[in-house]
Amino acid sequence: MPSSANVFSSRPVHRAWLATQARLPAGFRVGIARFGFTPVEAPKPAQMTLTLIALDRPTADFAAVFTRNAFPGAPVVIGRRRLAEKTLGAILVNNKISNVCAPGGVESAEKVCTETARLLHQQPHEILPSSTGVIGWRIPVDEMLAALPRAVASLNADSILPAAESIVTTDLFPKIRSVALEGGRVVGIAKGAGMIEPNLATMLVYILTDLAVPRDALRAMLARAVDSSFNCISVDSDTSTSDTVVAVSSGLVACPDLAAFGVALSTVCRDLAEDVVRNGEGVHHVIRVRVDGAPAPMVARSLGKAIVNAPLFKCAVAGNDPNVGRLIQAIGRHVGANEPGLDLTRLTARIGGIEIFADGVFQLNPAKEAALAKHLKDAELYASAPPKDGVFLPPVDYPTHERCVEIELDLGLGDASATVLGGDFTHEYVSENADYRS
Amino acid sequence: MPSSANVFSSRPVHRAWLATQARLPAGFRVGIARFGFTPVEAPKPAQMTLTLIALDRPTADFAAVFTRNAFPGAPVVIGRRRLAEKTLGAILVNNKISNVCAPGGVESAEKVCTETARLLHQQPHEILPSSTGVIGWRIPVDEMLAALPRAVASLNADSILPAAESIVTTDLFPKIRSVALEGGRVVGIAKGAGMIEPNLATMLVYILTDLAVPRDALRAMLARAVDSSFNCISVDSDTSTSDTVVAVSSGLVACPDLAAFGVALSTVCRDLAEDVVRNGEGVHHVIRVRVDGAPAPMVARSLGKAIVNAPLFKCAVAGNDPNVGRLIQAIGRHVGANEPGLDLTRLTARIGGIEIFADGVFQLNPAKEAALAKHLKDAELYASAPPKDGVFLPPVDYPTHERCVEIELDLGLGDASATVLGGDFTHEYVSENADYRS
Repeated sequence: MPSSANVFSSRPVHRAWLATQARLPAGFRVGIARFGFTPVEAPKPAQMTLTLIALDRPTADFAAVFTRNAFPGAPVVIGRRRLAEKTLGAILVNNKISNVCAPGGVESAEKVCTETARLLHQQPHEILPSSTGVIGWRIPVDEMLAALPRAVASLNADSILPAAESIVTTDLFPKIRSVALEGGRVVGIAKGAGMIEPNLATMLVYILTDLAVPRDALRAMLARAVDSSFNCISVDSDTSTSDTVVAVSSGLVACPDLAAFGVALSTVCRDLAEDVVRNGEGVHHVIRVRVDGAPAPMVARSLGKAIVNAPLFKCAVAGNDPNVGRLIQAIGRHVGANEPGLDLTRLTARIGGIEIFADGVFQLNPAKEAALAKHLKDAELYASAPPKDGVFLPPVDYPTHERCVEIELDLGLGDASATVLGGDFTHEYVSENADYRS
Repeated sequence: MPSSANVFSSRPVHRAWLATQARLPAGFRVGIARFGFTPVEAPKPAQMTLTLIALDRPTADFAAVFTRNAFPGAPVVIGRRRLAEKTLGAILVNNKISNVCAPGGVESAEKVCTETARLLHQQPHEILPSSTGVIGWRIPVDEMLAALPRAVASLNADSILPAAESIVTTDLFPKIRSVALEGGRVVGIAKGAGMIEPNLATMLVYILTDLAVPRDALRAMLARAVDSSFNCISVDSDTSTSDTVVAVSSGLVACPDLAAFGVALSTVCRDLAEDVVRNGEGVHHVIRVRVDGAPAPMVARSLGKAIVNAPLFKCAVAGNDPNVGRLIQAIGRHVGANEPGLDLTRLTARIGGIEIFADGVFQLNPAKEAALAKHLKDAELYASAPPKDGVFLPPVDYPTHERCVEIELDLGLGDASATVLGGDFTHEYVSENADYRS
């Protein structure tokens, strides 16, 4: 079996390093406005933050990929239409309410876009709305319109960090990744931790560049980059109604090497995808599954996804319990249900480089058991702190290290492979999503 | 939308009632033997229980359905062969080790069958082995052979309760359901709670009857009964390597009405399936999803399964949080990924009889929110007790009531329907599967 390639780069993240990544590419500015309001459906005080990412001049070179959830949010419905427009001038993000299947949701979002355009001297169809938060509630249009002038007044060309901090909610840390290239920059931010509030699950990603990349090339490269990054992770197997990845070029810096730009874009996407998993709700261990020897790439990826989504295996990893039986159970469950013809007789499996399955049977002994437990313990980001009032809170913010639980499978059937990242399943996840009541 | 039919009967279970169900049908005896041993792979003292269900005379009339996991345990491999044999004389169940993908697993199980047959004066191919426990370890053949004479010596024709209690491990209560019919009885027992030990997930079901039902009819009726009962539940979406449902007729009582027997068999299967969910690891709420108006039964069933398997929705239910957004997210995720052509524009959704979605948008207000929260609270089996040493233990054994969280969906597309049962997702589940180390 080949050793696992570092498809995900696993670079350590901390605040001082983030500051080195945060300089905005030329041609972009960021503005923020916060305000209080009362949701119609649950009349209790709430807070919303508007994050405005504006181009100095609208650009034709933009791309976006949206959720495949069959109930997309109003901003996703509008975003798909915006892809047909000639130019994009700004992105307006709100948190707290995701504007999904709410009465009049599309009209409300368009109203906010129209006012944003007026303030920026742009056209309404040049504004891309983006929302994350409670599914089903209506956005507070009047309060948003009242707050917009403050967001516009605060527009600043220095740093993307305020945007990275404003789109997160229960995320433990802001997520920024960047690559410098040919005198320009590719800078991405992401928000997402499984669910962000008691009612919400969303990943939002915005990638800005000053490198001049034509619209069609940008769209093709973004689709490829997303496919091998955000489409290869899972925190909890739930797909948000609002998932959005946007890439925008201001075109201010010539880009003589489009292929190099494509690599940079993919790197930013992969690094942000790993950040999202490492920051996943309650995640104590990042699990990296590499599947080799598959007859087709999708077979490899779906098998990897089945493992990082198997609740029993995720719980075992959380407990630093090298429960190899649950790994094999998860493989057998997936193949039995979805690939019944797949030949598993040549399967080999390693955890942390230690062979645990070959020739159709487990390869176990007490020494391996101890080494496997050590591998899991070494990959643990943190252990649970004692709960307060029954609620488990993560005792860390930034990740304590960049290690993963390394799982390598070889099906011995072909030359396709895939790497998938996921998280374990812990008390902090349950506390985040059950113990806090809305 | 039609009101939800009680496909699952939701009868309250308690110990006094179980005793009324436990009388063995004529022609069967049950024997038990417990012993200590040391597993090869993890040299720490362990306990195993053998449960022997013997027929006074081997019968041609038996049926079995096994797991679809692509890594079936050795007893499942052997069990599939036994289906081709002319007669079945006994079932031997062991717990603690499931004998899955262990070196020499089939040979070891056959050795135990051979000795069981010798002691019972039957043939080795008349013995059906059945195992549940740690996946990957080897069964202790010598110790099992030494214990078998005690199991045989204790054979008793009175009650199935000792067997129901011996096949359970971390189950909160033994599961027995029976129907009296035409002077005979159909009596079933089940074991299964998600996972039973830190390394295991298995459902085992044994249904005994003295009614004379020919082999082919019994097999056809068991397949139908399993399809609408055990195939319509999910505790945690993991499929065991050892799932087994067996039905055996001693043939001592004439059965003039096979159709009535089929109904009785289905009733026992459905009741046991609900018992398994209500006893599911960490389950605070049983969730019943009825899907109507589907274009085909499998569309309805798979949509129901997607809802009871969605982690975010399961956590919300655990918290008595009427998070309707997560319900719609789960529907949209499933349809977007698996049924992309399905028209959702006519979807209506109710929880506890309260309409929450129609005409493409949520139908919410504060009064409904309060009523939904009350419906969830009323369906709660128990609230978490304060953890001891960080471990959450269920404060109840038998279920406190038979109520469910009632979800009704109508797709408005056809006349197919399905009812699916599942559980919520709680700290007790995580404690069971992460906090106990093997």
